[in-house]
Amino acid sequence: MRKAESRAGMDEEGLIARFFRPLAGAPGALSLLDDAALARHPAGHEFVVTTDAIVAGVHFFASDQPDAIARKALRVNLSDLAAKGAAPAGFLLTLGLPKPREAWLKRFAGALRLDAKAFACPLLGGDTIKTTGPLFVSITAFGTVPIGAMVQRHGAKPGDRIMVTGTIGDAALGLLLKQGRGRDRLGLTAKAAKSLVQRYLIPTPRNPLSVVLRRHARAAIDVSDGLVGDVCKLCHASGVGAELAVARVPLSAAAKTLLDAKPNLLATVLTGGDDFEIACAIPPDQLRRFRAAAQRANVPVAEIGHVVAKRGVRVTDQEGKVIRFTKTSFSHF
Amino acid sequence: MRKAESRAGMDEEGLIARFFRPLAGAPGALSLLDDAALARHPAGHEFVVTTDAIVAGVHFFASDQPDAIARKALRVNLSDLAAKGAAPAGFLLTLGLPKPREAWLKRFAGALRLDAKAFACPLLGGDTIKTTGPLFVSITAFGTVPIGAMVQRHGAKPGDRIMVTGTIGDAALGLLLKQGRGRDRLGLTAKAAKSLVQRYLIPTPRNPLSVVLRRHARAAIDVSDGLVGDVCKLCHASGVGAELAVARVPLSAAAKTLLDAKPNLLATVLTGGDDFEIACAIPPDQLRRFRAAAQRANVPVAEIGHVVAKRGVRVTDQEGKVIRFTKTSFSHF
Repeated sequence: MRKAESRAGMDEEGLIARFFRPLAGAPGALSLLDDAALARHPAGHEFVVTTDAIVAGVHFFASDQPDAIARKALRVNLSDLAAKGAAPAGFLLTLGLPKPREAWLKRFAGALRLDAKAFACPLLGGDTIKTTGPLFVSITAFGTVPIGAMVQRHGAKPGDRIMVTGTIGDAALGLLLKQGRGRDRLGLTAKAAKSLVQRYLIPTPRNPLSVVLRRHARAAIDVSDGLVGDVCKLCHASGVGAELAVARVPLSAAAKTLLDAKPNLLATVLTGGDDFEIACAIPPDQLRRFRAAAQRANVPVAEIGHVVAKRGVRVTDQEGKVIRFTKTSFSHF
Repeated sequence: MRKAESRAGMDEEGLIARFFRPLAGAPGALSLLDDAALARHPAGHEFVVTTDAIVAGVHFFASDQPDAIARKALRVNLSDLAAKGAAPAGFLLTLGLPKPREAWLKRFAGALRLDAKAFACPLLGGDTIKTTGPLFVSITAFGTVPIGAMVQRHGAKPGDRIMVTGTIGDAALGLLLKQGRGRDRLGLTAKAAKSLVQRYLIPTPRNPLSVVLRRHARAAIDVSDGLVGDVCKLCHASGVGAELAVARVPLSAAAKTLLDAKPNLLATVLTGGDDFEIACAIPPDQLRRFRAAAQRANVPVAEIGHVVAKRGVRVTDQEGKVIRFTKTSFSHF
């Protein structure tokens, strides 16, 4: 197959040197001049490793700005590190390109560089390859934790409070607005609509909370596939259940406006996904300290329910009635 | 976008449990029940990390057997670890699937399991996602080396011998035969033709040589993009040049037969790539020990030239005439 390709165009080495070497400041990256990178964790620590890929037409729009694509690709991985209590250490990038366009690559790499710096997560290495299909970005990110300190998905116990960061549903509503291409803002102001779309395009991973989670959380998960489904996963892994109160789920002003106008968007909010917030189980005796530490880390947190012994996640509305969902989270297939 | 997807089909968790959990025996994989894995290198060691992706229609044929696709995806990464002198420690798998088919996944995962075991490189984690385009497999592999002992691409010095493992050109010739779909075996027996195609489909990474390289090589690279081009890269990184003698390049019997019949296939042999052999620079005083250690490791090695101070790689034919190539290696774009 390889031979059938065009001989024209940018060569891989040149592309890496021009666009990606500036991101590879860590000594272990070896200036991207070798086929592999070096990564070493401090003594008494270990690596938390996660990998997430995004594909045009599935996880983002091919027409999205290259800046947004780059940031989303890195941030969905940073979000996993945050939920696991790990400090970012570096990442590997695999870029599947239909055809390399300079202007696009420049903006993609430029944005990635800014995020790599902002989150202290340098590029260590990668692979740039041709694809005949849609663009894809696959990232493997490394973080460090003291040995045995990773916050796991399991471990929640009855009585623990279920806490969630930020606001829920913005990204899923933003996607809805984006799919409508602005023809229908569903009653929102242009600014409010834009804020939701922005939440879909560029998530805000909660890395400042990672140390707080290590200290106070019994279990955690990042909310990527939908709040209800991800709390289900945490509970399932822990062999417990949970009761969640819709009235306590933190919502942005824009999301509230939309929900007031169209109450049937509730399922989108609670099961739509792409939030990249963190849901965690905090033992009651840690609650005060957790809240205080989260505040110091500048991450808003809200209590949305509690863990119960009985399996299954029950979501109740304002009147205490159980809400049923046709599906609890985004299905990957 | 995510919302536009079908609700039918296999869910990701079920798919992972059924097909991939059996590969995830390492404790750090956490039975694939979390969003991240744990990886720890021994004290005094560090990780060598590499990532390589393959895409249907570019690096393999969509119709290739799932066993072969799985093995190639892992082995191209193992080959990088081998060239860098690293012992495999584990890998992360990202699988971009047009649609998940059970029979396909079963064979893919089954073959991957065998290779993971054979190369002592367990699955640590991964991501399975939907793509609207061709199937792709992106793997990030980890290996361990004593701190500072990674065999780098640079470091070759004038006088070093250029050595290469195995035989060169088989995979590129195999690809040619495969593209001809058996209509023209170019004079080879069916068995010989099949042996070349097999070399294209399933490379043999030279991991048994990794310790030998650490002890005796000044620089090394795995031959993935073509022998001449990859030796160029090694020399360029080292700030030196090389002289290679075509007559000394090790060829399989099948490749020899083809070259005798069609001498113009020489460029395919020397620049076609997909060999996944190792080229390395061995100081003259290490040569005997290198050869003996390679023999003990059961990896055939051959001297194909030597490093010179003058930059550039000169390839000479039997009569000592310099051969020029229109391109020295596979271009990724």
